[in-house]
Amino acid sequence: MKVHIPKKQLAEGLSHVERVIPTRSSNPGLSLLKLELSGGQLIFCGSNLDMDIRAELDTEIEAQESYAVPAHVFAQVVKFLPGEVVELEFGAKELEISSGTYTTKLQLDEVSSTPEFSFPQSYAGQLDGQRLAKALSNVRYAAAVAEYQAIFRGVKLEFNDKSTRAVATDGFRLAYYDIEEASGLEADIVIPARSVDEMIKLLEAGTAELELSDSQLSLKSGPYALNLKLMEGAFPDYERVIPSAFGVNITVGAKALSEAVTRVALMADKTSNNRVDLFIKEGVLQITSEGSFGRSQEALEVMQEGEESEIALAYNAQYLVDALRPLEGEMRFSFSGTTSPSLVVGINEPSYLAMVVPLRTN
Amino acid sequence: MKVHIPKKQLAEGLSHVERVIPTRSSNPGLSLLKLELSGGQLIFCGSNLDMDIRAELDTEIEAQESYAVPAHVFAQVVKFLPGEVVELEFGAKELEISSGTYTTKLQLDEVSSTPEFSFPQSYAGQLDGQRLAKALSNVRYAAAVAEYQAIFRGVKLEFNDKSTRAVATDGFRLAYYDIEEASGLEADIVIPARSVDEMIKLLEAGTAELELSDSQLSLKSGPYALNLKLMEGAFPDYERVIPSAFGVNITVGAKALSEAVTRVALMADKTSNNRVDLFIKEGVLQITSEGSFGRSQEALEVMQEGEESEIALAYNAQYLVDALRPLEGEMRFSFSGTTSPSLVVGINEPSYLAMVVPLRTN
Repeated sequence: MKVHIPKKQLAEGLSHVERVIPTRSSNPGLSLLKLELSGGQLIFCGSNLDMDIRAELDTEIEAQESYAVPAHVFAQVVKFLPGEVVELEFGAKELEISSGTYTTKLQLDEVSSTPEFSFPQSYAGQLDGQRLAKALSNVRYAAAVAEYQAIFRGVKLEFNDKSTRAVATDGFRLAYYDIEEASGLEADIVIPARSVDEMIKLLEAGTAELELSDSQLSLKSGPYALNLKLMEGAFPDYERVIPSAFGVNITVGAKALSEAVTRVALMADKTSNNRVDLFIKEGVLQITSEGSFGRSQEALEVMQEGEESEIALAYNAQYLVDALRPLEGEMRFSFSGTTSPSLVVGINEPSYLAMVVPLRTN
Repeated sequence: MKVHIPKKQLAEGLSHVERVIPTRSSNPGLSLLKLELSGGQLIFCGSNLDMDIRAELDTEIEAQESYAVPAHVFAQVVKFLPGEVVELEFGAKELEISSGTYTTKLQLDEVSSTPEFSFPQSYAGQLDGQRLAKALSNVRYAAAVAEYQAIFRGVKLEFNDKSTRAVATDGFRLAYYDIEEASGLEADIVIPARSVDEMIKLLEAGTAELELSDSQLSLKSGPYALNLKLMEGAFPDYERVIPSAFGVNITVGAKALSEAVTRVALMADKTSNNRVDLFIKEGVLQITSEGSFGRSQEALEVMQEGEESEIALAYNAQYLVDALRPLEGEMRFSFSGTTSPSLVVGINEPSYLAMVVPLRTN
């Protein structure tokens, strides 16, 4: 059985599938790539147990066969092929990969060693792929890296009949992003942040199809399909802690503020909480920091509003910089005291909201 | 004492000096940057004991003072400064760094804690900086990473009255590159490969000035000066082992051969010796490899000469690829059996010679 495929297409499809497949695993079957010839297509499947991935490529032949090869070796061979077209010849024990004057005979593994793959036949929901990718990538930073509650290491997706929201929080900060587009699904789900990273890379311009079952979200975007295992447990009731009244509001350029905080924080003590102090009065935001090497400061003119004439707060500089990264242009920064979270909202990007809890300074 | 300096110049100078200065050291004085105001210049010095580095920047003021600051913190602050001009104000205990609306007060350290720096007043030799950089970067790969004889971890420079040669070898391969330019020095020296890496980065278009003392090579290139500690011990008498008669010679494109070897070696066993086999007969070079995943092959047409009609040899694929990297266009590959080194010479780059010892296959 011979198949001819353009090298570029094959290499691109494989690179996405390969990224999911673990390089080392106690389960040797997980390191395999399943190759299926079916319905005029060559289909690759791989898994890391949290996530199954499938890529499909159109071919010129009709057949119904399955094979298994070591995923990373196969992907390396394809990446380095000299020609523009690859010939794959499936034998009884070997897959012969030829291109130009180069030939590799790769030993086939048992198909029965690969994980079971089952992707949906139909998808009930859909969203614009680029908008979903933007929502996820704007909030993903706020998920916890290591936390006693596993649920903080996930990103929540809230599907309702009017819109879709992505939310992440680690308990000290929170970010959400709203897409004013109904997906056709109605559910709240939480996806592991690592799976979200892969999801973002596969979402393309055009429609992303979505399907939910009890324990997984399935997603189809162009030639790629993903099954993502959902997280169990209760996501915190974050809306309850978003303050509604603020003593001081300022309007300032997001990039200018982020750069100033980064510079001033160079003197902050990295091993403790990377503290920067903000003091706002008479339309001037004074940023200061102090550590074992010295101290630094910068002043920005801002538009100041609100009932209180001044406010002093301290933050983890990295949390501020992370919260501002998704924003371009002017933003509103709202403060309601040292014990209540501060709010960041983009003036031109009102779909995004970030919340940062100030450091306790006394 | 105030000094004004363009940020770009200051950041560039600091980035080179900072790279040499260790981020951690059991000797805290080594983490310091020495700042000298002298002769209308601001001079930075740093050291990692194997190497001292100095950068000089022209300033508008005449003064004669010395200061010390933590090198990496200072370099970070300068890198993130907002404006195009930096003001440095040296006080009794602090260095105030200002640019735009940003100010940092960095605590000064004791100048007496910094290493002693002594750069030559005059340089006896000189070479074109770019040619010297090319010679060093073309052979540096052949130096040993870890070897029982420390001398293999160095690069040898042979200065004579007609030319200059850079040589490196790890005992299994060797590379040299000749510059047809006398430096004015006559000596053979060996420089640690790590110091060579820094040297390459600092060599610029124009003249590199050279000065030798018993235990160090000093080098001046543009605004930078380096003192490089030399290695002790006898460098191997490599010319003795370069064969002069060859049974088979081939002419082949260096890039085509390197790419074919890389592809075929994907099947080679990385954990053993990454073996590829070469078989030359009737103007065809057949490259093959075999490992636990399968086997691969590629054939290249070559121009074949020599007394013998065919030859079969095996190599560590990485050694071949490394040996070919400096070459563009056609190269001559010469073989004199399985127990004698093979030779690589560029047709358009005869200054470069590489020698690779074949694997013992029986």
